[in-house]
Amino acid sequence: MLAGTAMGITVPAVVTVGGAAPTAGVTRRITLYAEALPGGLFGYGLAPGQATVPGPVLEMWEGDTLEIDLVNTTNQRLSIHPHGVDYSVDSDGSPLNDSFNDPGETRRYVWRSRESAPAAGRRFMPGSAGYWHYHDHAMGTDHGTGGVAKGLYGGLIVRRRGDILPERQFTVVFHDMMINNRVAPNTPMFEANQGQRVEFICIGHGGLPHTFHLHAHRWADNRTGMLEGPADPTSVIDNKNLDPGSSFGFQVIAGEGVGPGVWMYHCHVQFHSDGGMVGLFLVRNPDGSLPDGAQAAIDRFHGHAHEHN
Amino acid sequence: MLAGTAMGITVPAVVTVGGAAPTAGVTRRITLYAEALPGGLFGYGLAPGQATVPGPVLEMWEGDTLEIDLVNTTNQRLSIHPHGVDYSVDSDGSPLNDSFNDPGETRRYVWRSRESAPAAGRRFMPGSAGYWHYHDHAMGTDHGTGGVAKGLYGGLIVRRRGDILPERQFTVVFHDMMINNRVAPNTPMFEANQGQRVEFICIGHGGLPHTFHLHAHRWADNRTGMLEGPADPTSVIDNKNLDPGSSFGFQVIAGEGVGPGVWMYHCHVQFHSDGGMVGLFLVRNPDGSLPDGAQAAIDRFHGHAHEHN
Amino acid sequence: MLAGTAMGITVPAVVTVGGAAPTAGVTRRITLYAEALPGGLFGYGLAPGQATVPGPVLEMWEGDTLEIDLVNTTNQRLSIHPHGVDYSVDSDGSPLNDSFNDPGETRRYVWRSRESAPAAGRRFMPGSAGYWHYHDHAMGTDHGTGGVAKGLYGGLIVRRRGDILPERQFTVVFHDMMINNRVAPNTPMFEANQGQRVEFICIGHGGLPHTFHLHAHRWADNRTGMLEGPADPTSVIDNKNLDPGSSFGFQVIAGEGVGPGVWMYHCHVQFHSDGGMVGLFLVRNPDGSLPDGAQAAIDRFHGHAHEHN
Repeated sequence: MLAGTAMGITVPAVVTVGGAAPTAGVTRRITLYAEALPGGLFGYGLAPGQATVPGPVLEMWEGDTLEIDLVNTTNQRLSIHPHGVDYSVDSDGSPLNDSFNDPGETRRYVWRSRESAPAAGRRFMPGSAGYWHYHDHAMGTDHGTGGVAKGLYGGLIVRRRGDILPERQFTVVFHDMMINNRVAPNTPMFEANQGQRVEFICIGHGGLPHTFHLHAHRWADNRTGMLEGPADPTSVIDNKNLDPGSSFGFQVIAGEGVGPGVWMYHCHVQFHSDGGMVGLFLVRNPDGSLPDGAQAAIDRFHGHAHEHN
Repeated sequence: MLAGTAMGITVPAVVTVGGAAPTAGVTRRITLYAEALPGGLFGYGLAPGQATVPGPVLEMWEGDTLEIDLVNTTNQRLSIHPHGVDYSVDSDGSPLNDSFNDPGETRRYVWRSRESAPAAGRRFMPGSAGYWHYHDHAMGTDHGTGGVAKGLYGGLIVRRRGDILPERQFTVVFHDMMINNRVAPNTPMFEANQGQRVEFICIGHGGLPHTFHLHAHRWADNRTGMLEGPADPTSVIDNKNLDPGSSFGFQVIAGEGVGPGVWMYHCHVQFHSDGGMVGLFLVRNPDGSLPDGAQAAIDRFHGHAHEHN
Repeated sequence: MLAGTAMGITVPAVVTVGGAAPTAGVTRRITLYAEALPGGLFGYGLAPGQATVPGPVLEMWEGDTLEIDLVNTTNQRLSIHPHGVDYSVDSDGSPLNDSFNDPGETRRYVWRSRESAPAAGRRFMPGSAGYWHYHDHAMGTDHGTGGVAKGLYGGLIVRRRGDILPERQFTVVFHDMMINNRVAPNTPMFEANQGQRVEFICIGHGGLPHTFHLHAHRWADNRTGMLEGPADPTSVIDNKNLDPGSSFGFQVIAGEGVGPGVWMYHCHVQFHSDGGMVGLFLVRNPDGSLPDGAQAAIDRFHGHAHEHN
């Protein structure tokens, strides 16, 4: 699993279908470090000095348990609160449940996951599979508004056996007027070769509504982003609300049907994109070389003030 | 049906699958009273002096008709406008169609429902089943902005035969910076015992965008909140847009996989939750007793100013 | 296909199921004129002097290619950028990719579409079918904020073989506090006879969040708006987020189960509807005559200031 290596899990580096999933019900333990970063930011990292904004993508297979020893190296109260998975009140990450790290404190948070289970009426209570996320819930306010504003967030994926694994993986966090706490032209440029299977994990935070748009690629608005069969009724979209606390993910084949080039992803709220909520998805040629015109587009992007002209 | 008793329908009090549904096409009649309440609020109630904010949950089985005699006991123009069901223009509840109650007036509104019907191309025109809502459409403005702002709203559920009935039912209305026209710590504390099947009916109103988040529970983003089969492609979520005029509902098993405790539900727009758009979902032990730590969490909630600190 | 005639395609005028689709993989060429309009607006049109706000609905069958010669008759930089379909970087419509029309310039944009294709894990990469839209991406800012604000937008439908064709088709663009750049009572009044199959194409633009609500009609929140089978788990709704860059569409039978009359469609954000984001859907009697009370409702609508009263 791609991001698995970041968690210390040995996984195949190539695209595989879920048969490669480890045995169900495995418990893994990681240490996560919350650290102060330049510019007043904070981040989570898997080793001391490696905190990033956003934090590392954490992945689980349905049925697995993840034990996280969170080391708070900062002088602020903070925590880690996950979406989508199971946790007891003492792993809630909220001051309400007295679940947070004081400055300097290390605390264990336990996240469990499960497969869907039959219910009455031929229905199934949902399992944990999904494109989720985690974030601070204690810095600044009891809802972690300070921590979220300063970068304490990241992607969390729970996969179902049989899910397809990507070759590239990108995390996009829309937060107020920024992407991953950055403004264009300093926003991330994601890169893949034409034909590679890439995975976007999109997360909304903060106080404003946003819509995520990706040029020249589209996805099914369901759990995987792909149609699950010829009769799957799901809408296919290329623009989706990414409002505070929501997340979604999807896989696309880079440049499929459109070719290599520099494709924008951006918030489609017009004054947000004009204000700098835009980044680049560089699809290289299949051999990894830069396609014609790509450097010129990148230069244009970097030279542009992203203001009304 | 749980809320059915509130409508004068004799229904089983325990969880049953839809076999317990009454005969299709039944017509029921209720009287609803619109009343002024303390604090400048208004509410709907099923008997004089029993108006609440939100109003009672009204329920129908697909195919049923509900006749509502709305008694306007106030000195304001008002009405009742439903989402999801069928009604003629004279039951539209809008001043546009001259469909409202003058002060002191009683007026009958008729809501019909239907099952889905085959269309060309092996498709089906949707039936009425859904988690809907009703609200005033005449007080203050021709869109009922005054009535909605002051509490004239409630949940409306149309069930399909075979649907599972809940043991507990909670209505959550996000309206501007409030939940059910209240601000924390005065927001509703919903209660259930570990293992009970609870149903959330979530409704958005007013002028601001919101997102509803429930801690430690998740649901499928489809009609029922449960997966409708092993191949159901629906996304599973725990955070969803709850913007003006929208509604959704879902059932979860209280504390399933996470245990009893005090779980927050809140708007995930950070300054909304900080401002008091947060309430508690108390999951008691299976025997109804209070779990360890719950009282301390409740006390913390009530002592908290819900402002930035 | 209804709007097909607007594109110079000979198609049946009556409702047909997709067997009437032309051969897959057809390439069509149209000329589109971007023109200045009174009141500072701009529009796209299929012939000189025929630009409208919104522009014409463009339609394709999955597999088709559309070549658009865009004639810029204005003194502004502008372009056309589609959602949902395939295009190379030189048809991106963005200044980033040097893809726009200078004043007076004619430029060809090529949009391709495709059917869904099998992927690993019994999944399918999504095809192009959907209710999409197109808009300027170059006027005013690098994101076309000026062009979108002034009317350079329209609907784009890619149909799958087997899709049902409508008898009437309406485009609704929510943009800031306007519908199709108009405010009530000057918003569009859509008309159909009771029983006709009508199609709504809903598009969001600008800088504000909106929700689209249609009185007395509902749709499935999936690709077609209809349930795709008895086990389709999709939510049925009558109110949906219509935020910048998003689009959706659905078909309903005019007045089905509710009868003829004047039905509102409006933004459900209360101060938006109060401010004039409301229009009328006039369902005539089956013979086309005006139903009782309809003229009075229309008169009420036109006499109303749409302000708080």
